[in-house]
Amino acid sequence: MSAETDEKPGYVAKGKGFDRDMNYIPDRITAADPATGEPRQPEHGPTDVPLWPAEPGRYRLVAAKACPWATRAIVVRQLLGLEDVISLGTPGPTHDQRSWTFDLDEGGRDPVLGIERLQEAYFARIPDYPRGITVPAVVEVETGKVVTNDFPWITHDFFFEWRDHHREDAPDLWPDDLRAEMDEVNKRVFTEVNNGVYRCGFAGSQETYDAAYDRLWTALDWLEERLTDRRFLMGDRLTEADVRLFTTLSRFDPVYHGHFKCNRQKLSEMPALWAYARDLFAMPGFGENTDFEQIKQHYYVVHSDINPTQVVPKGPDLGAWFEPHGREALGPTPAFAR
Amino acid sequence: MSAETDEKPGYVAKGKGFDRDMNYIPDRITAADPATGEPRQPEHGPTDVPLWPAEPGRYRLVAAKACPWATRAIVVRQLLGLEDVISLGTPGPTHDQRSWTFDLDEGGRDPVLGIERLQEAYFARIPDYPRGITVPAVVEVETGKVVTNDFPWITHDFFFEWRDHHREDAPDLWPDDLRAEMDEVNKRVFTEVNNGVYRCGFAGSQETYDAAYDRLWTALDWLEERLTDRRFLMGDRLTEADVRLFTTLSRFDPVYHGHFKCNRQKLSEMPALWAYARDLFAMPGFGENTDFEQIKQHYYVVHSDINPTQVVPKGPDLGAWFEPHGREALGPTPAFAR
Repeated sequence: MSAETDEKPGYVAKGKGFDRDMNYIPDRITAADPATGEPRQPEHGPTDVPLWPAEPGRYRLVAAKACPWATRAIVVRQLLGLEDVISLGTPGPTHDQRSWTFDLDEGGRDPVLGIERLQEAYFARIPDYPRGITVPAVVEVETGKVVTNDFPWITHDFFFEWRDHHREDAPDLWPDDLRAEMDEVNKRVFTEVNNGVYRCGFAGSQETYDAAYDRLWTALDWLEERLTDRRFLMGDRLTEADVRLFTTLSRFDPVYHGHFKCNRQKLSEMPALWAYARDLFAMPGFGENTDFEQIKQHYYVVHSDINPTQVVPKGPDLGAWFEPHGREALGPTPAFAR
Repeated sequence: MSAETDEKPGYVAKGKGFDRDMNYIPDRITAADPATGEPRQPEHGPTDVPLWPAEPGRYRLVAAKACPWATRAIVVRQLLGLEDVISLGTPGPTHDQRSWTFDLDEGGRDPVLGIERLQEAYFARIPDYPRGITVPAVVEVETGKVVTNDFPWITHDFFFEWRDHHREDAPDLWPDDLRAEMDEVNKRVFTEVNNGVYRCGFAGSQETYDAAYDRLWTALDWLEERLTDRRFLMGDRLTEADVRLFTTLSRFDPVYHGHFKCNRQKLSEMPALWAYARDLFAMPGFGENTDFEQIKQHYYVVHSDINPTQVVPKGPDLGAWFEPHGREALGPTPAFAR
């Protein structure tokens, strides 16, 4: 998610494990009071942060398709039908030391924000912003300022705070009766899997790598078993927990298996996880937002401290993503995907 | 096979393809004339080179189990039953800039040659030997001098020139009626596969990598098809062509797939090649000389220019090497392996 601000990019700290900087701009966008237009107090999560009102057209989601944390937001936005309400800017797969850039757009500028580097939107909000310039970020279009880059709350609030703008058959990504269990599952998936693969790849010593590898595969074995008789992570219903796992699984064989040394097996060698990933891939919003070329470009080019040649592998053969998954028997297909 | 002599080891030439130095000390050891003890003129291959007589106990093969070119010689020596005639010294899997070392032996010295570094045997032969210190090398025990490191001829001559010392049920590794076809197969396997994986891994640009990858997979597809209805590369009989292919296949999933970016598929995803490799693995001389830990240590630690952290992956899971291969129906099992 991050573009480092250091002069020379480095992801590995020699002799040490990988420690993700989890400090983000914590603002939240919440439902607007119909009478006053003021943002309401959110039901869940941090409340002592600046609040902004949910208003169609006011914000732009900036999210690179290469990045798993950003792709979560792209997928959730589409599942909920928020495309006409929150616009989308997509930086290219590689970035320099300073920032993600809009190099795929005409003239190298985001067509709405008019900027070349996402850094400009961070600096508009906080001059000399000292942390990594990360995606996803939500930017206020009129001022060009970043509102928030606090990724777990961005998708959470797309669901809870933009409900009035969801499409009719939008899936219930946060069922009330599952919330407590979802919090546990999400936490384990985040620490052990989403971030676990980075802990393997950016390990600065054999010892920290070995420990990271064992933690990752313990979690993947747990997921493999859990998904053997459940269609989705939380059972019969597709939830945001699935989106969070999917964006790691879709990067597993193209990147994490080799580049991050997560190589006990390929995803395609874990029968339940692999069929589960293909099931999601075939649904609207998932496969169409999975750009394997951008994904490979990003990791292999940007992490030059673990891939100094910056050569991008041509493999793996990804044709099998389109093969039948056979998961229909385990539970109902969500309405939006029928 | 090589330990570079440069101060800082580097395998990748930026912007260029990988070009293997194929200049070796070309001496050959040939059968001794029973009357005079002089080495005979060889039937095949270079003849205008210094010749040495095949004499039991006179030579020591120095070969690291990590190295595919060296492991060829270890396997052939055992298949032919030359263990009591040509002794074996085994350097450890990693080496420094200057030389393979005998770090696995007591006191860090080869117990027969008494040296710490293979370089000493090269310098005893040619002071300031300017090329890579490579394995396999055949060393004259009494003088401690390298006789030859010309690897294709070392195994060839183990077969043709040491026949009087072969064990009774030794396989005919070079059947006369197959020689012409074997030369073609060996050549293609060498340039496209044995060396082809290195061409992928040490590519200094995206273009040279892409070309190397396409060449490699074209050859692997050819082999996959060839081995679908043949038990061995040359048909019903195990030959040296199989040994030459095996030492690359056994390194494929542990090293070449990830480290060298040969990642269209794993070996274990190529049904005929994978069963073929397991068939050989189960035969005396093959599996027992395949040391996956040494193999991984070697590549991931020595090639610090493509793996700067020198972290060695814990995967892949190699348990499936021991599963039944089901290849008996395609042709007879060689006598030595029954």
